[in-house]
Amino acid sequence: MIVDGKHYQSIWYEADSDSVRIIDQTRLPHEFSLVTLTTVADAFTAIAGMQVRGAPLIGVAAAFGMYLALRENPLQTEDALNLLASSRPTAVNLRWALNRVKRAISGLPPDRRARAALEVAQAMAREDVESCRLIGMHGLEVLKAIQASRADPSAPLNILTHCNAGWLATVDGGTALSVIYQAQAEGIPVHVWVDETRPRNQGASLTCWELQQQQVPCTLVVDNAGGHLMQQGMVDLCLVGSDRVSTNGDVCNKIGTYLKALAAHDNNVPFYAAMPVSTIDYGTAGGIREIPIEQRDTAEVTSITGRDAQGEVQCVALAPERTRAANYGFDVTPARLVSGLITDRGVCAAESTAIAGLRRTPV
Amino acid sequence: MIVDGKHYQSIWYEADSDSVRIIDQTRLPHEFSLVTLTTVADAFTAIAGMQVRGAPLIGVAAAFGMYLALRENPLQTEDALNLLASSRPTAVNLRWALNRVKRAISGLPPDRRARAALEVAQAMAREDVESCRLIGMHGLEVLKAIQASRADPSAPLNILTHCNAGWLATVDGGTALSVIYQAQAEGIPVHVWVDETRPRNQGASLTCWELQQQQVPCTLVVDNAGGHLMQQGMVDLCLVGSDRVSTNGDVCNKIGTYLKALAAHDNNVPFYAAMPVSTIDYGTAGGIREIPIEQRDTAEVTSITGRDAQGEVQCVALAPERTRAANYGFDVTPARLVSGLITDRGVCAAESTAIAGLRRTPV
Repeated sequence: MIVDGKHYQSIWYEADSDSVRIIDQTRLPHEFSLVTLTTVADAFTAIAGMQVRGAPLIGVAAAFGMYLALRENPLQTEDALNLLASSRPTAVNLRWALNRVKRAISGLPPDRRARAALEVAQAMAREDVESCRLIGMHGLEVLKAIQASRADPSAPLNILTHCNAGWLATVDGGTALSVIYQAQAEGIPVHVWVDETRPRNQGASLTCWELQQQQVPCTLVVDNAGGHLMQQGMVDLCLVGSDRVSTNGDVCNKIGTYLKALAAHDNNVPFYAAMPVSTIDYGTAGGIREIPIEQRDTAEVTSITGRDAQGEVQCVALAPERTRAANYGFDVTPARLVSGLITDRGVCAAESTAIAGLRRTPV
Repeated sequence: MIVDGKHYQSIWYEADSDSVRIIDQTRLPHEFSLVTLTTVADAFTAIAGMQVRGAPLIGVAAAFGMYLALRENPLQTEDALNLLASSRPTAVNLRWALNRVKRAISGLPPDRRARAALEVAQAMAREDVESCRLIGMHGLEVLKAIQASRADPSAPLNILTHCNAGWLATVDGGTALSVIYQAQAEGIPVHVWVDETRPRNQGASLTCWELQQQQVPCTLVVDNAGGHLMQQGMVDLCLVGSDRVSTNGDVCNKIGTYLKALAAHDNNVPFYAAMPVSTIDYGTAGGIREIPIEQRDTAEVTSITGRDAQGEVQCVALAPERTRAANYGFDVTPARLVSGLITDRGVCAAESTAIAGLRRTPV
């Protein structure tokens, strides 16, 4: 996508320096800064510290991490796989990507493993871009149907999104936001309500930033506002990404998504989640009981980072000293609240048979 | 209630200086600072700027504001009433308090109006303290019943609250938190999940602070977390305040309350709102359509105030420059999601007949 008029991906391999480069998403929106990863430890830190985040992107980042690990020492395969798998517990794409690298290098002599891992990582990056394009294409049909059903189809379609499921959460293109970018490209007027998405404010920091860069009209709201907006008829569609979908259609996504799905259901607003099929965990039957929910540092709740009057980025405390806090990273939206899943293999109902069928659908 | 071991009210008349004193709630939790109000303009600024907030407290503050206005000029009654009524649009207690002052001074010669307004304001302050005590007493029965129904009645009762309905929202004692303080006094073990309550973070700033001062165990969470907590069985009861209740039982309260009520309903968690009967607007039949929702400065969404590493309180920007935002202050929870209303005249169902009966119930 475009940053200040120039095309970027969120991660790429730079052949000249034989290194992996990323956009440091913890610095946005205050600073656009690139980081070079040269070791598996760098890759681990980038994922665990959320310099890269978003289910599809952390899968690709982990695959590149395996290249960096094997380049350093082709015999540390298992240790590197375990290290990278431990960087984030909830997103299934991470394990999926690591398994794919593992399969690709199994049986290879040590001196060929690094190159094979790099090839897998680069292939996954290319496939992710294509997958995002397909998600957008299939989601566009959903948007068109909703637009056609409205009293005034020429009025902007109001879409509420939570967290960042944009190009920054993928290699390029985005998942939920891919649908919006393709709608914009088709001339469908859209306006996006952006949940700020506490505690890490990916909505305020990343989604607002990338929508503005692509010139999509958007309005930032606190996470508390969505219920009121839907109750007052100001939202036509909720559209979010996902970190893991279980085979019964439960959708795990950033904490707070479930509350928006409840409000959508209560107000007859369609609620869709968009993700590549690689985000579906065919080993998990029921999300609410089975998906592990990451607990993060409680300092993310008791403090926040922003830009002060002098333009310096700094962290300020929000609560009394010694306040005890809890910080659950994700929640699970039960399938009954999900209107449908928008995937790279088409749109399907959030229920077992449709999801099982998706697995066999050719891309 | 107690601050650093000393008893305070959130507002009081100081005879020696013939002035009204308040705790500046915009400085909490970083600084405990008292402010002196000497003119009606001071009172307007204190209410509009949220140095005092909370439906019961702003009613009393407006009554004291009338005293300050009439002391200055006993002929400016209507202008002062209009000014103070315009300071916050949603809470009904403000209008209720101003009407009461208006009735008390009507027909009085100018030189007796200020004194009459002061007497009303002081009476209202005393009544508010008593009203909070009664709310706590009636709510305690609700808590006891919930506690008795649990598998392990000796485990702490987990109560989720939103915004601040504590003593800081009243003259003393609190509404929703009055119930918790009385439970604590009775030896019922409680633990409070405190929603931070963006955008102004009254949960993180005020509720955590006052619960800590009274030594009630509490854990701060982001507003997004409550759905997950309820889904995982970590909440026994939601307990909030209210800024206005319509006669059909719709509860207007801080933005985001509706989302918690939806989650409570979806997970069979009781959801109660606590308020004095003066918060019930007997002139409004249906909250969702009729209650005006205050829209506040969008800078509350795009930036936040906290304490930096040097201990200085400062405001930091959270979003890209030129981000458009919207800032709705309240939402309305439909009566069907409300388990009951806890008032100073007893607990009642959130429906028309019970609410009409409450009006006739003697205190």
